[in-house]
This record gives sequence, C-alpha cells and structure tokens, in this order.
Amino acid sequence: MKTKNTKAFGTDSATAPLKEMTIQRREVTPTDVEIEILYCGVCHSDLHTARNDWGGTVYPVVPGHEIVGRITKVGDKVTKLKVGDIGAVGCLVDSCGHCESCEHDLEQFCLNGYTGTYGSPDKHLGGYTHGGYSERIIVDERFVLKVPSNLDLAAVAPLLCAGITTWSPLRHWNVTKGSKVAVVGLGGLGHMAIKLANGLGAEVTLFSRTPNKKEDAIKLGASHVVISTDEEQMKSVKGKFDLIIDTVPYVHDVNPYVATLNYSGTLVLVGYLGDLDPMLNTVPMIMGRKSVAGSVIGGIAETQELLDFCGKHNIVSDIEIINMQDINTAYERMLKSDVKYRFVIDMASLKN
Amino acid sequence: MKTKNTKAFGTDSATAPLKEMTIQRREVTPTDVEIEILYCGVCHSDLHTARNDWGGTVYPVVPGHEIVGRITKVGDKVTKLKVGDIGAVGCLVDSCGHCESCEHDLEQFCLNGYTGTYGSPDKHLGGYTHGGYSERIIVDERFVLKVPSNLDLAAVAPLLCAGITTWSPLRHWNVTKGSKVAVVGLGGLGHMAIKLANGLGAEVTLFSRTPNKKEDAIKLGASHVVISTDEEQMKSVKGKFDLIIDTVPYVHDVNPYVATLNYSGTLVLVGYLGDLDPMLNTVPMIMGRKSVAGSVIGGIAETQELLDFCGKHNIVSDIEIINMQDINTAYERMLKSDVKYRFVIDMASLKN
Repeated sequence: MKTKNTKAFGTDSATAPLKEMTIQRREVTPTDVEIEILYCGVCHSDLHTARNDWGGTVYPVVPGHEIVGRITKVGDKVTKLKVGDIGAVGCLVDSCGHCESCEHDLEQFCLNGYTGTYGSPDKHLGGYTHGGYSERIIVDERFVLKVPSNLDLAAVAPLLCAGITTWSPLRHWNVTKGSKVAVVGLGGLGHMAIKLANGLGAEVTLFSRTPNKKEDAIKLGASHVVISTDEEQMKSVKGKFDLIIDTVPYVHDVNPYVATLNYSGTLVLVGYLGDLDPMLNTVPMIMGRKSVAGSVIGGIAETQELLDFCGKHNIVSDIEIINMQDINTAYERMLKSDVKYRFVIDMASLKN
Repeated sequence: MKTKNTKAFGTDSATAPLKEMTIQRREVTPTDVEIEILYCGVCHSDLHTARNDWGGTVYPVVPGHEIVGRITKVGDKVTKLKVGDIGAVGCLVDSCGHCESCEHDLEQFCLNGYTGTYGSPDKHLGGYTHGGYSERIIVDERFVLKVPSNLDLAAVAPLLCAGITTWSPLRHWNVTKGSKVAVVGLGGLGHMAIKLANGLGAEVTLFSRTPNKKEDAIKLGASHVVISTDEEQMKSVKGKFDLIIDTVPYVHDVNPYVATLNYSGTLVLVGYLGDLDPMLNTVPMIMGRKSVAGSVIGGIAETQELLDFCGKHNIVSDIEIINMQDINTAYERMLKSDVKYRFVIDMASLKN
C-alpha cells in the first residue's frame, strides 16, 4: 500500500521526552477521509501511554485523540464529508461494525475490539496506529465527526475525549432538567462535566478538597461547591444527588460520596483505574438501592450528539493553546494540575 | 389506648432461645385491619435480629415479617379489605406517606423512616413493634397486601420478604423476556430469584460453589449452572449477563462475577452487608460501563405487583412447615443452610 511521509511528535521509549519523528500514513481508501490536523487536545491518557504507566505501550508511540482538522481528500465512496469541511476524530478510528455493540452504536464496547486512534494494531499498514500529534490522519468516514460551525475549533478538540467521557454517563443515567448532579474533581474531565450537566439543565455541585476552586466552578456552571474534607459540609448534602461523576484519576475513598447519593442514585467513576481502596461498604448501597459504576468515552453517534448539543448551547472546553514543541513541559504541568483546563496543541506549530 | 393480650414467640436477650411470651396489640383504629396470622416465614433477618448480630436490637423482640393471615376485624374507614379476606404483611407496617419516596411508592426509602414490622418504634403503643411470630397483628390497611386465591397460603409467606427482595431488582433493572440473568447462591433468596427471573422470561444461570445444587436449580427454572470455583466454567460466561442477583450473605469476592457481566450490566447485592473484600476493581467496570449496586425489599405497590404476578404464574416458595415451638432448631438448621428453601411456621401451633 502506498504511504505518505507525515511529520509527527512521539517517543521511542517510556523515559525519553517526545520529539519530532516521521511516520507513515496510508493513502485514502474509498471510504476514508484525509484530515489536515489543526488542533489536538492533550489528554492524561497521552502522557500515561507515552510513559507506559499502564503497561503495554508499543514504541514508537504518537499520542493524541482529541483531533480537529480540515478535510483535504476523500475516497470515492465517502458521502458524509467533502474536501474543505471541518472534521473531528476522537479515541476510536475503527470497529468491527457488525457485533451486537456496534449495531447498537456502542463502538467503544466492540466485541471484536475497537481500533484506538493511537496504539492499536493498524489494519491497513500493519504496526500500530498513530494519533493526532501529527500533520494529518486518514480515517474511515464512519469515525469522523462533524463540527458545528459556530464553535471555536481549538476549544472543540477536548470534547472528543474529555467531553464524551463525561457526556456519555450524563446521558446513559438520564440527566435532565432538575437532576441533581455532583462532580468530583475539577480538571479536564471535571470542568467538562460541570458545563455539560449544567447545559442539560441539572443543578450541579462540585466536590473539591480545597476552597480555591469555588470561583471557577461557579463560573463553569456549578451552583454549589462542597469541600469534601469538611464533615459538616458533607453531611449537609447527604442523600442529595441523582448522579455523581467522579473524575478523580488516583485512588480515593468513594464511600463518603456514596453517602451523598439519593435513593437509586449512581456514582460513576470515569477517572480511576484500580482497586477501590478503602473498601466499598455495601450497607448504604443496599439500604438505598445505590450503584457504583464505571464509564468510558462513548460511541460515535453519541459523540456526534455531544458536538451538536455543544453547538446549540455554545459549549466548548476552557483551554490553553501550546505549540507542539512545548508538549514535554505541558506534560509536567499536567502532572501538577497546572492547566485550566486542557492543553490544546496548535498543530500549525509542527510546520515550524 | 385499649390493648389486647396476644400470645407470641420471642426472646428477652441475644443469648436466650426464643420462648412463648405475651405481647400487647392495639385495638383497630379506623384505618387498621386485624389479622389472625396463619403462616409466618422465617427470614435470616429474624435470626440476626434475635441474636443482635447487627447491633441495636431492643428486647423483648418478636421476629417475623413474612405474614399471611385472615382478616378478623376492620376499622370504619377500611375500604380495601373486609373480614374473612386473606391478607399479607411484609417488612413494613407504616411510613410517613408524604415524602418524595412515599409519593413514588418507595416506602422502603421513606425519608422520615419507615416502621418495620418488628423492632421499630411503635407509633401507637410506644415501645417497639412486634412481628409475625404471634397470634395476630394489627396493621394499617395501606400496608396489607391482597393474596391471590389460587396460591398455597403457607408457601406465599416467603414472597413477602425473600420474594420482594429479589423481585424489586429484577423489575428495577428491567428484566424481561430474553434477558440473561445470573443468580449467585441458592438459598431462600436465590431460589426465589431463579423462579421469578424465569417467570419474567429471562434465561437464568445459577452460580454455585458446588455441583450438588444443579438438579434443584434446573427444577426451579435455571437453564444453566456454573460452578464458580471452576475457572474454565467462569471464563465460558465472561461478558454474558445483563443482571446478576447476588444473594450471598457473607463476605465474598464479587470481581469474578463482574467479569461475567455484559456491557452496561449490573451486579446487585441483596444479601451481604459489609465491606467489599477483596477490593472491587474498577477497570472492568469502566471499560464495560458495568455497575455494582445494592437493593433492599420493595415498596407496597411493588409487593402487590409481585403477589399478582405470582398468582398469574403460579409461583410460590419451596418451603418446609414447622411448628412455632421448633423455631430454635430451625435457626440452627438455617445457619447450616439445611432448608429447602424456607421455613414457614404454621401459626396454629402457637395455640397448642
């Protein structure tokens, strides 16, 4: 298969900083579109994958799965998009298309294994897929989203991962006007959860360990901020929430948050992968029919629904734009939560 | 308030066996019915309460919340039942009636605290309520269920607790024809879960630690039995179930069962009160949008729905009838799981 040299940023090892490299992109097949990448958001998963924090990273790796760009070429059979359109790509670039999950627009649960935007076996070229820290990407049109024309393109990029990761549980657990939603943690995911829950008409509360995030939370759309280390404040919201979106990425005690769920309420973990330590106590769960659940990104149709919703409600991410060459510094700042609330790479910088 | 001497079986301390005693019952108020108790099921909670296993038992205690009997008197304003009718009483005898939970027929979650059939503060007489191990009980008609006339009355009794405890999650999590339901543990709750899920048209699997329950499980309505200690068998049902009803009352590892949930599936704990040890791992929950939940009994309308469903489908509990005087031996046998599958007291024996 004919390929095209493509400038990218990635790394050859868990311990080396990211640097410029050249990768190969396939020519468009009849159902593919080629996207010139304009902006790419920086997700914590990028950093974890680059540094092999979860194990299993295959090098070289080119991260990036919050991609917005301009369509520069389309295959013969492409109908949804045309050259010049703005398109977006999230965490998925392929799935089997015919399993029970795919048939229900749940490509994130493809029973035959979805193809991630980076780090998955590449069905076309062999080797592994490479993500959005690059000049261009070629993706089957089924996995390319349309971007509402009224939104700032750089600030749209984080919707493709941080946005859909919080949108999907809000929708799956039926958040609507008047729902009482709490968000644990105010980072890339948390700030999107507040904006989207507020956009859906929910009354939103932020749980935070420190009071210094209050002003921001209110600006983003929260009605209340509860300091989770203050027992009195925690008691005051006992039994209150229909849904809690817990975005905290490290081990933490979820029992105090379960106590703030209303009967039949659900706490959804979207950030923390690991054992629930301290142990989850079942008594309040049983006595209140409460659930603790997990959720990961969302399907393609649901991601398009999110983008359309954001277009209608004028919702985008709060971002700080960086150059591609600043990615290693950005990673260090992310580790210190020193970003409000998402870095987005201006991919024009890669041409420098 | 005028009261009536009533023969009962109860205990004065956590360490004493149950014995005959006399308790007081109120005269019927305008909205009350008096029930001559014909049968009372024996629930594990009776034993735990009598022995103060959960703390907080106030003595003397008269257990019993799976009550079936004949109406012998009704208050002036009673409209739902008349003298001579068969009525049933479960775990609840009162609730505030006007909170958000009560307004939604979720008396088990009454925000002002429901009144349990035994061991709750008695609003009428002071002291604490006394349960079904007694000649008669007086209950507000709102908390008295109607019993379909085609069912065996003794075998109906366990529906009032074991039945509704498993019915409520089957209904809340939308089990229907073709749903794939698994049941963990084959005791009083487990055998009802199998019968009811099967009655709803689900394909039912029993998880059991030993193969010797297979024949019974199939007879009760299960299509498959999976030996949970057999890794190969557990692998063969990976990702299969929409809902798992976990009836095991002691600490156990739920992670192997979570692995057998399908995407968006839920494991509902109805038996075990305590910490989830070993710790629950979030990875499969997040990657498959799975939930771990709890559930407790059900509301009055839902209990009536269950009884009507059982009448239509001719479902009752598998029971062993005992005399009231045999209750202490029955408790010892329950602790060894030596009952298929629920003891029911023939309350006529109390007259001896």
